[in-house]
This record gives sequence, structure tokens and C-alpha cells, in this order.
Amino acid sequence: MNIVETPNKDVWMNYTSRPGIKKQELDKLVGGVIADVQLNGDKALQKYTEKFDRVKLNRFKVDEQEFNKSVDLVSNDLKNAIALAKSNIEKFHRSQIYTERKVETTEGVQCWRKSVAIDKVGLYIPGGSAPLFSTILMLAIPAKLVGCKEIIVCTPANTHGEINPAILYTCQLLGLKNVFKLGGSQAIAAMACGTETVPSVYKIFGPGNQFVTKAKELVQQMGVAIDIPAGPSELLVIADQTCNPSFVAADLLSQAEHGADSQVILLSDDRDVISQVNQQLAIQLQELPRKELAVKALENSRAISFNTFADCIEFSNQYAPEHLIIASESALDSVENITNAGSVFLGNYSCESAGDYASGTNHTLPTNSFARNYSGVSIDSFVKKITFQNINKNGIENIGPAIEIMAEAEELYAHKNAVTLRLNEIRNV
Amino acid sequence: MNIVETPNKDVWMNYTSRPGIKKQELDKLVGGVIADVQLNGDKALQKYTEKFDRVKLNRFKVDEQEFNKSVDLVSNDLKNAIALAKSNIEKFHRSQIYTERKVETTEGVQCWRKSVAIDKVGLYIPGGSAPLFSTILMLAIPAKLVGCKEIIVCTPANTHGEINPAILYTCQLLGLKNVFKLGGSQAIAAMACGTETVPSVYKIFGPGNQFVTKAKELVQQMGVAIDIPAGPSELLVIADQTCNPSFVAADLLSQAEHGADSQVILLSDDRDVISQVNQQLAIQLQELPRKELAVKALENSRAISFNTFADCIEFSNQYAPEHLIIASESALDSVENITNAGSVFLGNYSCESAGDYASGTNHTLPTNSFARNYSGVSIDSFVKKITFQNINKNGIENIGPAIEIMAEAEELYAHKNAVTLRLNEIRNV
Repeated sequence: MNIVETPNKDVWMNYTSRPGIKKQELDKLVGGVIADVQLNGDKALQKYTEKFDRVKLNRFKVDEQEFNKSVDLVSNDLKNAIALAKSNIEKFHRSQIYTERKVETTEGVQCWRKSVAIDKVGLYIPGGSAPLFSTILMLAIPAKLVGCKEIIVCTPANTHGEINPAILYTCQLLGLKNVFKLGGSQAIAAMACGTETVPSVYKIFGPGNQFVTKAKELVQQMGVAIDIPAGPSELLVIADQTCNPSFVAADLLSQAEHGADSQVILLSDDRDVISQVNQQLAIQLQELPRKELAVKALENSRAISFNTFADCIEFSNQYAPEHLIIASESALDSVENITNAGSVFLGNYSCESAGDYASGTNHTLPTNSFARNYSGVSIDSFVKKITFQNINKNGIENIGPAIEIMAEAEELYAHKNAVTLRLNEIRNV
Repeated sequence: MNIVETPNKDVWMNYTSRPGIKKQELDKLVGGVIADVQLNGDKALQKYTEKFDRVKLNRFKVDEQEFNKSVDLVSNDLKNAIALAKSNIEKFHRSQIYTERKVETTEGVQCWRKSVAIDKVGLYIPGGSAPLFSTILMLAIPAKLVGCKEIIVCTPANTHGEINPAILYTCQLLGLKNVFKLGGSQAIAAMACGTETVPSVYKIFGPGNQFVTKAKELVQQMGVAIDIPAGPSELLVIADQTCNPSFVAADLLSQAEHGADSQVILLSDDRDVISQVNQQLAIQLQELPRKELAVKALENSRAISFNTFADCIEFSNQYAPEHLIIASESALDSVENITNAGSVFLGNYSCESAGDYASGTNHTLPTNSFARNYSGVSIDSFVKKITFQNINKNGIENIGPAIEIMAEAEELYAHKNAVTLRLNEIRNV
């Protein structure tokens, strides 16, 4: 890690920047795929699946037999682990569901909101280097809890046309029947436009590579909503002298192994902590199977010392990390001061991987400083909130005159008239 | 209005379509303005304000004197009306603020969410044909309630360099000090990029013309969040024989006067209602100052009869209207069946203009069928929700083994190691 010592506040901006994302000419390529899928449906899906995923598929939908087979292929240990994670994720997300009370804003004027599930949602689960069955838990559990009627899953098959058993097992466990062997921008296009076999959806969730990200960006312009804008994963750790440097190094590496573009940042008010963590990094790195990725990610990363713990928190708020670990025995004291972060891990035993899998919080989080203006995925992401108003005669008598005056001042005379007619009727004019 | 009689369900799609929005080559034009503002700051703002708003401004920021003058220019009647609206909007939006409880998902594993205000927000208030001071109430009240630190307002001046007094008065009433005389795509660019005088923000709210809409779309790609995607305003009324046809016609016209691209739809299970409403439309239209706009909007609009009231509700859910009026004495019975709508007005005395101004609900709502996958503006729009987890030794012992198994199955060994190190320490290995 690059070490920076107590930088002045006016240069903090230099250290809150993210590794540059290569702007590539993806618009045309991905836009072409979407247009093709919209026009040619399954035929286009077959073409791109053969081209990009190198497998010829005559059928995209996973059948009963494949689901059943996956149940046999997953170990009992993994099944039990998934069951525990599922239970915790369900508990935490269920706690986010609540019914708002009705409010009488003026006598006779009742207002309230109702949360209603988005009818049709699509979940994208990447294939690639790791089978991310945990992402199915994170996306499908809240969708199921709020009652989305149609839940579509797209995930790419390998070159033998197979999907990782842990992914299929998790789908099956959650009662997801509409699982399609589709990856990349063609999968996003299929869920946005619909084809002969893939139903269209109103909102698309899930991580993916640059093609998937671009496709999600483009289908937004077709009226399809997406979960959150995407960027490389990142972790910021604030550690003080009560931290365990070996744990901190392990946490930094757990983020770094995600990929060469991941970013990890260490802040401390104690220079010794930084050098101890650096020593531990060197030791632990040797043992790591995904060492090459981690080494590259560490090149983008920084350890920064500050004079005070408060400065560490302030810098972190400016950086707005996706994951924030407060590696300190006094971590709870900082909660009120944290204003920009996706998910926060408090104390020496709250490791990021707990939140990635099983603590109960969602791991689909805002990256790339989006924690300043976006929330992670939650129950809220799968509903829209409809407002209602029930106004009786008394109510419109109470607020009607104010509406008439305001509508007239905005030169909207028909708005005024809708009230005037009602007031006249009530007053028997 | 065009009348359609009891269409078969398989052709409903033909009637849920919106008037086509002309796709224009705005990308280049608006993209150019944004790039220019980013590079040249205030100088570019001056240039575009002179070009598009036809006024030469040496200073954009509204000063104390202008605010004070506005207080004198607004009538007491309007001040009282605004005060009533403000009070109701505050009451309803305050009721949306609540603290979620902490959840112990497993013994030793505590999870919770905290809502934190987005630090800096920008509110765009259109000038144009009507001075929309009501939109300031709708956007600034929730921003103030959650505690956004910096609230920027941009609104175009007239050719004399002045802003409508009702707009300035409302800003002053709400304690908004950072008000800038800027309109169009240059205003959005200024709030997204920041200039010498206009601070940059993290999220931009507010309605606008096609240039504003395009600019909001483009700055999203720079990491700036926006409230909701925009489209022309619309109203769907479901009326049965207990409606008042004169009220229904007035409501349809109050939507139609917004502009030629507005859309109004009338559904009924009673053909007599449709013809009575049509007669009332013809009568009321004559009295309307904005008659031309309303006539054009009515050309895009439809009255559709159905066999049952349930069919009306089902069609409405498929259409997903921004505003939905249930003009029936039994309106409350339908609440549970409404699944797609922005804001719903129940009964014969709940007119849309009540929600536009003073009932307390927000009038910034999803149009263009976005009510299927987006919510209107609310307290939620001005915060992000940060998740926290506090895991103690007991907690990591309880969930650690599951995390190890899942991380290994996803081939993320550093994720596993972060847990293993902690478990070893606890077990004194």
C-alpha cells in the first residue's frame, strides 16, 4: 500500500478519488445488442450466447431436472450455511417492512402512503470467476418478502451449458422458477424488452461486468429502473491502537481479492498501526490463491495517517466508502458521526465478509462515492410507495380557499375551478 | 375526448400507451452546454442565460434586497394560503420520518439502518408560463425536515432579470438563501459541476422542459442522482354512477391545462357517466383561459367504458397513472386493489388540485407509466439509508463457520480467512 502521512485538508480530494474507470466505446456495441434482442428475440439471444459465452443453447430456461440435480450436488454443510444466511437476511429485511400511519393534515383531509411490490423484477447473477449464489439471497429474499409477482433470474451457463449447482440450489430454495441461462448485455436486454421465452420486467437488479453495467444504463432510458449505478467494490478501514492489525490486513485483502480494480483504504490516527498492518499484509498475501488480483488492487490503495480519529471519520465521510470497517474497541462511539457509507462494520469482530454473506444486511451497496446520494438495496428497492388522500366535504372547505388562491397565483385556472365547483356545491351556490 | 367502448383485454395495451415523445437530437446540444459549464463556469452560464433566457446577468445569486422586496409584493391572502399548504406538507412528510429498530439476527449479531440526509441537494424550479412556487414547498420542505446541509435553488429570471415574487417569498419563508437566477440545461449543469458562484450538489430535483430533462439524464452519468425520470403530466379518473360529472370534467381540465402533451383518461362502468362528463367538458372548456392547451391535451385523451368497476381498476393498474382519482362514493373500497399509481384521490371531494397544493402529499410524481417502478418524491428521496452491523465474539462464533463455507464455495479465500483468523483468536488456536 502507498502510505500518506497526515495530509492537509485541502489536498484530501486527491486521496478520495477512485481509480479511473476506462471509458470505452461500449455504447454502440451494447446498444446494438439491445436493439437486436428487441427485434429478433430468442434468435438474437442464441447468437450472442454462442458468440460471447461460447455455448450453443436451444433452450434458455432451466428445467425441473436441472434444479433437482443441483440439490444432490450441493453439500449438506453448504446447505446449512445457506439456510443460516437466509434466515438472517430474512429477519433483517423483514424488519424494514412497516405500515405508515394515516395523517390528518387538516380536519377532513387524510393522507397516507402504501408500499406496493413492483410486479416484475429481474435479477442478474454474474457467472465468471466465482459463482455468486450469495447475491441471489440478497436480491431474491427482499423481492419475495414484499411479494413481487414475477421474479426472473438470468445467469450465464458455462461452455457445457451448465449453471453452478450452488446457484441453482439457492434459486430452488427460494422458489425461483424462472431461471434463464443468459449472461452479459444480452441478458439485460432480454429482461428489459422481453423475448419469446424471457418475460420483460420493470426493474433490474444485480452486479456485472462493464457490458452488463452499460446495458443497465441504456435500458434505463427505455423506462426500466435499475438498483444502483455500478462501480468497482471498495473498502475503507479506520483502525486505532485497539485494533487487531492481523484482522485489519485480512479484511483489506478480502476486498482486494475481488479484482484488480477494487480499492482498499486504511486510515489511522496511529502510524504504528499502519506499519503493523502493512507487515501483516505482506505475510497474508503469500497464502492467497487470488494473490495476483489482490496485489494489483493494493497498488491502487492507500494507507493514510491522521492526527486524530475524528479526522479519519471526516475523511471517510468525504470518500463515502461502499464498506466501512471501524476497527476499534470504541467503534460504537462513531456511529452518529458517520454520514456517508454503504454498510458499516463496527468493532474488531465485524468483518466485511460477515455482511457479504450472513449477518443479515444486504451486500448490494453503492460504490464509487455513490454512498453520498444512494442507498444500498433493501426492501425499499422492491416497492414503490403510493400516496393516498381522502378528503371529505369538511376537508375541502378547510383547504379549498387556499388552493384557489395558490392556483390563481400560478395562473392555473382549471385547477382553481375544480375546487370552486366543489365549494359552490357544498355551499349550495 | 375519444370514446372507446368496452375494449377486449387483449387490446388494452393500445390504450395504455402515452402520446409519443419526440426523440430529438438533444444529446449533442445539451451535452455541449454541460461540457462548456464544466470548463468555463460562470462565463458559460452568462453566455447561455443571454442566449436562451434573453437576459444579461452579471450576478446570478438573489440578494437580500430582492428577497425583502418579494415579501412586500405578495398579498396576505397568498401568504396565508402558502402557510396552510406548508403546514400540511410538513405534517405529512414529517410522519414519514422514523427510526428503525435494531435487529439481532443471530445472538451477538446486531443489524440496523440509519437514515442520513444527503448533504447537498439542488432544486430546479421552472419559470416559463406559470411561477411554480408550490414546487418549492414540495421539494424544500422534505429537504429541510431531514436536514440537508446545503440546499441550492435554480430558477430562471424573466427578461428584466427578475424572479416572480411568489417564488422568492416562498424561498425566503423556508430559509433558502442560495437562490440563483438560472434556468434550462445550464442550471442543471451548474448544480452538477459547480461554478465560481454555484455550489455543486449530489442530487438534483424538480420538473422542467425537454432541455432540463435531458440535462438531468446526462448528469446522472457523472454520478449526480436525480429525483425521478420525467414525462408529461397525466391524470386517470375512474368514475361510477355516484360521481359528480361536473367535478370529473373540472378535474380532467385541471390536468389538461398543464400543456398540450398532458394526457387525461376517463374510465367508467357506466356509459351515461361518460356522456355526461363529455357534456360538462364542452361547457367548462369555454370558460378556460388556457383553453388552447387543454383542447390539444384532450385530443390525446380517451374515455373508455368497461363492463365492471373492477375492470376499470385493472386497466388503471396497467396504465399506471401519475394521478388517479376514484370519483365514487365507494372509493375507499378500492384502495387495496390499486397497485400502480403515483398519488390517489379518493371520493368526490378529493380533487387533484388539492394534492397539487395543499393536502400535504407531494406533487412530484412518476409519470409515463413510471408509477410501475418508481415512487414519488418523499422524505426517502432526501436521505440515504446506511446499514450497520455490530458483531461481538459470540456473534462471529455463531455465524463465522457458515461464512467460511460460503466464501470457500464462492472461491473467495481471503473472505474466508478474515473469519478464520478471528475464530482462531477466539478459540486460542
